[in-house]
Amino acid sequence: MNIRNAIIVLAAIVLSQFSMAQNVVEDFKPSSVNQVGSQYPQVNSEGRVRVKISAPWALRVQLDIGGIKYDLKKDEKGVWIGESAPQVEGFHYYQLNIDGASVPDPGSLYFYGASRWGSAIEIPAPDEDFYAQKDVPHGLVSQKMYFSKVTNSWRRCFVYTPAEYDKNSSKRYPVLYLQHGSGEDETGWPTQGKANLILDNLIAAKKAVPMIIVMDNGYATKAPAPNGITAQSKSAFPFEEVIINEIIPMIDGSFRTLKDRDHRAMAGLSMGANQTITITMNNLDKFSYIAGFSGTSNYPRTDVIDPATFMGGKFKDGAALNKKIKLFWLGLGTKEPAPFPGSVKAFRDMLDKQGVKYTYYESIGTAHEWLTWRRDLNQFAALIFK
Amino acid sequence: MNIRNAIIVLAAIVLSQFSMAQNVVEDFKPSSVNQVGSQYPQVNSEGRVRVKISAPWALRVQLDIGGIKYDLKKDEKGVWIGESAPQVEGFHYYQLNIDGASVPDPGSLYFYGASRWGSAIEIPAPDEDFYAQKDVPHGLVSQKMYFSKVTNSWRRCFVYTPAEYDKNSSKRYPVLYLQHGSGEDETGWPTQGKANLILDNLIAAKKAVPMIIVMDNGYATKAPAPNGITAQSKSAFPFEEVIINEIIPMIDGSFRTLKDRDHRAMAGLSMGANQTITITMNNLDKFSYIAGFSGTSNYPRTDVIDPATFMGGKFKDGAALNKKIKLFWLGLGTKEPAPFPGSVKAFRDMLDKQGVKYTYYESIGTAHEWLTWRRDLNQFAALIFK
Repeated sequence: MNIRNAIIVLAAIVLSQFSMAQNVVEDFKPSSVNQVGSQYPQVNSEGRVRVKISAPWALRVQLDIGGIKYDLKKDEKGVWIGESAPQVEGFHYYQLNIDGASVPDPGSLYFYGASRWGSAIEIPAPDEDFYAQKDVPHGLVSQKMYFSKVTNSWRRCFVYTPAEYDKNSSKRYPVLYLQHGSGEDETGWPTQGKANLILDNLIAAKKAVPMIIVMDNGYATKAPAPNGITAQSKSAFPFEEVIINEIIPMIDGSFRTLKDRDHRAMAGLSMGANQTITITMNNLDKFSYIAGFSGTSNYPRTDVIDPATFMGGKFKDGAALNKKIKLFWLGLGTKEPAPFPGSVKAFRDMLDKQGVKYTYYESIGTAHEWLTWRRDLNQFAALIFK
Repeated sequence: MNIRNAIIVLAAIVLSQFSMAQNVVEDFKPSSVNQVGSQYPQVNSEGRVRVKISAPWALRVQLDIGGIKYDLKKDEKGVWIGESAPQVEGFHYYQLNIDGASVPDPGSLYFYGASRWGSAIEIPAPDEDFYAQKDVPHGLVSQKMYFSKVTNSWRRCFVYTPAEYDKNSSKRYPVLYLQHGSGEDETGWPTQGKANLILDNLIAAKKAVPMIIVMDNGYATKAPAPNGITAQSKSAFPFEEVIINEIIPMIDGSFRTLKDRDHRAMAGLSMGANQTITITMNNLDKFSYIAGFSGTSNYPRTDVIDPATFMGGKFKDGAALNKKIKLFWLGLGTKEPAPFPGSVKAFRDMLDKQGVKYTYYESIGTAHEWLTWRRDLNQFAALIFK
């Protein structure tokens, strides 16, 4: 053994001692969202994420997850390996950093989040059964393309139809409009959100009414008029125009829907929660079920809400709202960062003060991520259209 | 300017001269399959691919496309940039290599091909209009999950239903089963294959009959029996059992199909072409239209085929086959590598010798990639079920 190799071996021994000092539990398993045949990334029972990549000429390779970069260690073959601190249960976006280049991990599948397609990992949760692919009838998730005059562009939504939809060619169904959060898109709910599997399982267990779910893209920019001037949206924001004037009529024209407010719900997460509360409160003739998952329409403010002025006074008459809204749902994970807990609290305080009835759900031990929102959907979908 | 910077500037001048010596045409534009907002990768009018990535500590960064690795050059800010030799028109998988690590390009969208989810680029073709997203009625692409007893696993297929499908609740449709190639999966045809857009455009122009297209995964492994022994497949390969005994009955039970052989076609590319010819010839009671895009069932052999023994003598009686097969289609790109041209030629020679009628299509200037297969589908779909 030459001196160079001896140094590398010594360094490896020192580093392995360091790992042991951290008490890393050696029960790592490949992540459930790996590429076919990929052994890495892996997750252990503590929720640590271990990644591995061959980069023989690299000087520094890091795992970048949860806002922290963890240095990997190189073996003699040029393969880098290392792990993060424990992550909370649920779904987390991450990336690798190779000599300063931020890139997806070639071992993981890719998801749209954090405003880009990139790597993600699933930290297993004890209640994962409710969104597991089980031996129950499965609905379809259909990609629908439509042209929006508001944005002057092609847009895409995904539409879940329950398993029985194609067996009952005359039956009509209620519709849940279900929105993603900031930096995400219409692929979020049918992919990492597992909305279709959650509903398949609920419907098979007769816990939820068979329903259609529409998952669209919450971003919309108004196209300029022929004179080059972009008219101000008459709605709170352009997406309100798109969903009210374009998406709902398009869905009602293409699928066997029940078209009245009693059979229409809207829910969204984070940015989508904010949009949901604004859009439904502006259009109570069209919606009777409302859900904000990890978000409210006062976001990001946490101060006391004045119902006289907030959202043009839409919450002034609590008794009138209670007659119209069949279910107002708010949810939050217990590990969510500021400003979400404070913002949701301020909104709840306002509802309480006005006597507006609502259901509040806390997801234990989860952060501002998809496990919180899967649990929200699982609970909320079981309560609506009944 | 210090000496180090002077050297870098000099090096840049020398390198730029070298680039000019290559006559790189400076009309690069962002690729049509980039991530939203990404300016790179780019393509120029020669079909060169230019990539750019920040990797300030890296020693060597390469673009790996078409089996060749191209060294990138680093600027003073640590941003690497460089381009490939001209690529043929069409769709190409590629990756970046950063100090020996092969990773996806964070600028591109990701596609499944080459046995992994990774980067790809589209070199524009003059005839791209036939697969463009146009102002025509669009069909749905639906994700259907089903459990296979043959493989003892959940499988997924995508089902295209034409735009009129939901307007005519009693009409039944012919079905094309459309298969991907080696190292690809069921996402190939509805994504980079653009099968839905090709059919939307053909149907809107009344060039094709409205039809259902089923795009499944061509890989299947037989599950062991309860005694632990895996029975030999009675079919040529397990996927034949899956499509004949499971997929076709499942599709006929879930969609409004026409269920006779006159209204059922199968087509596939490369490995899928080989599978198509084998499966349809073994099941001529179920299929009347057959297409092999860039592949035949003698692959990879290029020697003369003896019809007496080839595929158990299934091509012995050409006249009988001509009565049964309404269209036998073979296609090939003029720039495909060995063994495809020789293999397809040997197969055609056999058909000619046996007097089996077939239509042969050459895609001018394209390789063993998706532009060839989009053109095949565009031509073939216009001829069937008429």
